[in-house]
Formats: sequence, structure tokens, C-alpha cells
Amino acid sequence: MEVREKPIGIFDSGVGGLTVAKEIMRLLPDENIVYFGDTARVPYGSKSKETITRFAFEGVRFLMKQDVKMIVIACNTVSATCLEELQREIPVPVIGVIEPGARAAVKATENGLIGVIGTERTVNSGAYIRAIESLNGGVKVFSKACPLFVPLVEEGWLDNEVAYFAARIYLEPLKKEGIDTLVLGCTHYPLLKPTLKKVMGDKVFLVDSALETAREVEKILCEKSLKRTKEGDPTYRFFVSDNPDKFIKVGERFLKRPIDPISVIDPEIETL
Amino acid sequence: MEVREKPIGIFDSGVGGLTVAKEIMRLLPDENIVYFGDTARVPYGSKSKETITRFAFEGVRFLMKQDVKMIVIACNTVSATCLEELQREIPVPVIGVIEPGARAAVKATENGLIGVIGTERTVNSGAYIRAIESLNGGVKVFSKACPLFVPLVEEGWLDNEVAYFAARIYLEPLKKEGIDTLVLGCTHYPLLKPTLKKVMGDKVFLVDSALETAREVEKILCEKSLKRTKEGDPTYRFFVSDNPDKFIKVGERFLKRPIDPISVIDPEIETL
Repeated sequence: MEVREKPIGIFDSGVGGLTVAKEIMRLLPDENIVYFGDTARVPYGSKSKETITRFAFEGVRFLMKQDVKMIVIACNTVSATCLEELQREIPVPVIGVIEPGARAAVKATENGLIGVIGTERTVNSGAYIRAIESLNGGVKVFSKACPLFVPLVEEGWLDNEVAYFAARIYLEPLKKEGIDTLVLGCTHYPLLKPTLKKVMGDKVFLVDSALETAREVEKILCEKSLKRTKEGDPTYRFFVSDNPDKFIKVGERFLKRPIDPISVIDPEIETL
Repeated sequence: MEVREKPIGIFDSGVGGLTVAKEIMRLLPDENIVYFGDTARVPYGSKSKETITRFAFEGVRFLMKQDVKMIVIACNTVSATCLEELQREIPVPVIGVIEPGARAAVKATENGLIGVIGTERTVNSGAYIRAIESLNGGVKVFSKACPLFVPLVEEGWLDNEVAYFAARIYLEPLKKEGIDTLVLGCTHYPLLKPTLKKVMGDKVFLVDSALETAREVEKILCEKSLKRTKEGDPTYRFFVSDNPDKFIKVGERFLKRPIDPISVIDPEIETL
């Protein structure tokens, strides 16, 4: 198959990476996509570095077997844990979600005060702080873990009172610091944007890592002359390691289109 | 060691079973306790029956190696999935949390309308409905999954606006059915009691499975003449399979006493 025709592979520990898939579909509507969500082993957040790295390699190798032309690690935990190892070992371009978000934040801030929200694991890893500070040592980064946001999104409670009061509690300390830019450092969070905006006010710029990552994908495809050029609708295929029904139910809220076809695979066996 | 002196073993997928441990400590203050929380593999809820059964046997065999006189499965998912297999294979008394809660609900209801709340897995298993209906075919059971309650409790948000509005949304349909008894079918939920009471009103009786399970433990120890009789303070030991710091942080809110000593073990290796 001509390399331009090959699909983009997207890997996530579960359903959250669909926000990234959605932005790629919007920005690059001709591209074929293969998505793998490791729903049998989600969440990765509480697992050790070794385990996360092993799971990530299994998932990525499964995508390589689908003959992808590049891979997007649409998962903050994996991006923060073993992106460089993956980039070293995998023979196609591999990008994560942290670098694009960090770059957009540094570009957006005017007062040099940036907030980052994410899961406990992502925040504790310090990956966003390192990425932002290495781009601009002059900015100040304040971060805050928001453990309730993922279950809120998975429950579909995006802009009710529960979401509003949770956001108020989590974001109050960042508001007090006077940040003018807030990085949504978890792939679930873009669905909460209306609530986050309500709490933060109009003057704070929200950096949507999903959108920034899609832009990065476009840039790389252009640079490497890998953009699909053939006519005809693109194909989207979805794979999960468990529970396709829940993935479809929650995921269609993320993707705003049908998740079909979907298959269940075992990444441990598939990549032997 | 004299059998009466042996500890009670408590097994849970994580920290929630500490509500059961707390009630056992209160009701049976002389008993020695060994607690194992499988924090490396929590949550069990989304895993298959085979996997849950394997994990449960590993955890229970680890407790058997600590020379326990009985075992409490302080986890609704495991109780709903493989309690009978465990009771068949393990040579000491093994009890779960569903049966005691179901019995207390049937005893408490006056109008025969019982509500059950729990995780998605527990509710979908239908285990409470079966247990309640087998005790009294005349009652009617309404159940509702409340997926946000576990993350709320783990965040320590027990009676703020977020907890209140979440409880209002989840419990509204049960209120409408006119239930007079509500079973808290998840070991995390007793911490939300004040909020649940506020939403349900004074006339609805809340069945706390943790408390009912502790009563069942007392009954079995009495029947089998296994109650500890020696003088001297009891010893409490805690084991987890990962992340002891988080277990201590969240768990001390559950237990209202120090979690010490705590050790990290690998149940797969320990039970070979």
C-alpha cells in the first residue's frame, strides 16, 4: 500500500483519546484512522512505570501490525511515562499530547502565569511543568489534580451543578494565582470546556491538548509528505481490549459519530 | 497458635473494605485483624469473571498464609462474582457483604419497597436483587448505579455541594418509587451517609452493609466458639499490592485511626 494511504494509529488507555481522534478527523478529514483503547487495563494512572511502558509497547505494536504511517499517543499518562522509549523503538513518527499542549500554552500566555490541570498521575509526574519551562524558563506554572473530572465526563455530567461545583473547588486556587492560560492536561477534559469557561471567566485561555495535538499531526504529515491524497471517504476502525459496549456508549459522546466497526483484541497475544 | 487467637482476614480490591474493618474493630474490639487491599489491580468492577476470581483466590490465599481463622470478603464485586467458589475451596469460614445487607433490608422494610445503590458492576450483576428476593419474594427492589460516589469518597468530598447534587440526581428515581429502605451496596458509601440522609429524608432507613457484615462476623465467631478470649490489645496489620501512601491517606479517613504497620506485597508471587 502506498504510504500516504496508510492509516494514522491512535493509542490510549481507554476512551479519552477519542477527543484527539475527533480533532484529527475534523482537521484532516481525508485521513484513515485506527484507534486502540486498552479498556481491559484502564486506568494506567496508578500503575508503575515498568507496567505502563510494557502496556504501551503492546498497544503500539498492535497498531504497527495495522500498518500505520504514524502513531499518536493520545494519553497523558503514557506521554509522560515512556514517549521517548517509544520514539526510539518504533520506526514511524510517534507523538504525544504533552508537548503540543505545552507549546500552545507558552504561545498563548501574556502574563506568564499558566495553570495545568490533569489526573493525579499526570500532575505528579511534573511532565507539563518540565515541558513548559524548557520552552520558556520565564513563565510560572501552577498545577492542580482534578480526580473527579474523568468520572464526571464518563458519567456524561458535563455542565450540571455537580460539574460546576467540582470545577469551582478545583480551579479556585489557580484563579487566585491570576493565571491567564489553563492547559487541559487530560484527554477527557475538553468535554468540560463550557463548565471550565464558566468558572474561569472569559479572560482565561483554555488550551485544548486534543486540538493542539491534531495540529501537530497535520504539521508532521505535511513535513514528511505523508498526507493522504487519494479520493474516497476515509475509513475509521476501532479496537478495544474489553467492554466494547461501554466504550461505544461513552465514546460516542466524545466523538459525536458512530463508533463502528469495533473489535475486541487481546494486546498481549496480538503482539507476540 | 490457639485458633481463637488467630486474626480475622479481610480482603478487598482496595481501600473501601476499611469501612467493614472499622465496624469489626468497633463491634469486636479484642479481635486481631489482617487486611489485604489489592490496590495494584483496583478497580475490579470492569474486569471479567475469570480475572476477578483469579485475583480473589490470590488475595484470599495470601490471607490464609497469615493464618487467619475466618475471611471477610469486604468487596461487593468479589462477593457478587465468586463467593461460593471461595467458600467451597477455602478451609475457614468465608463471608461476603451482600447477604448481610440483603437480610437487614428485608428485616427493615415496612412497605416492601427496597432501593439498592452500588457500582455499575454490582448493580448489573443483580446479586442484591437475587439475595433479597430469595429471602422474601414479596418485596420489590429498585436499583441504581452511582459511579461518581467512589471517586467522591476517595477525594474526601463527603458532604459538600458536589456530593449533595450528585446524590440528588442518583437518588431521585428511587425516592419517586417510594422506597422506605436503601441498601448502601458498596463499601465506600457509608462515608456518604450524612449526605444520603439529607437527600432521602429521615423516613428512609439506610442499610449499612459494613455494619451488617460485622454483625455477621460476630455471629459466626460465637457459633463456632472462635471469639478471641486472651487479654491484651489486638494487633492490626495492613497489606496492599501497590501505592501504600495513597492507601494510608484515603484509608485513615475511612478507618479513623492510623494505618500502621503497612506492607506492600505481590499477591501473584506470595501465593505461589
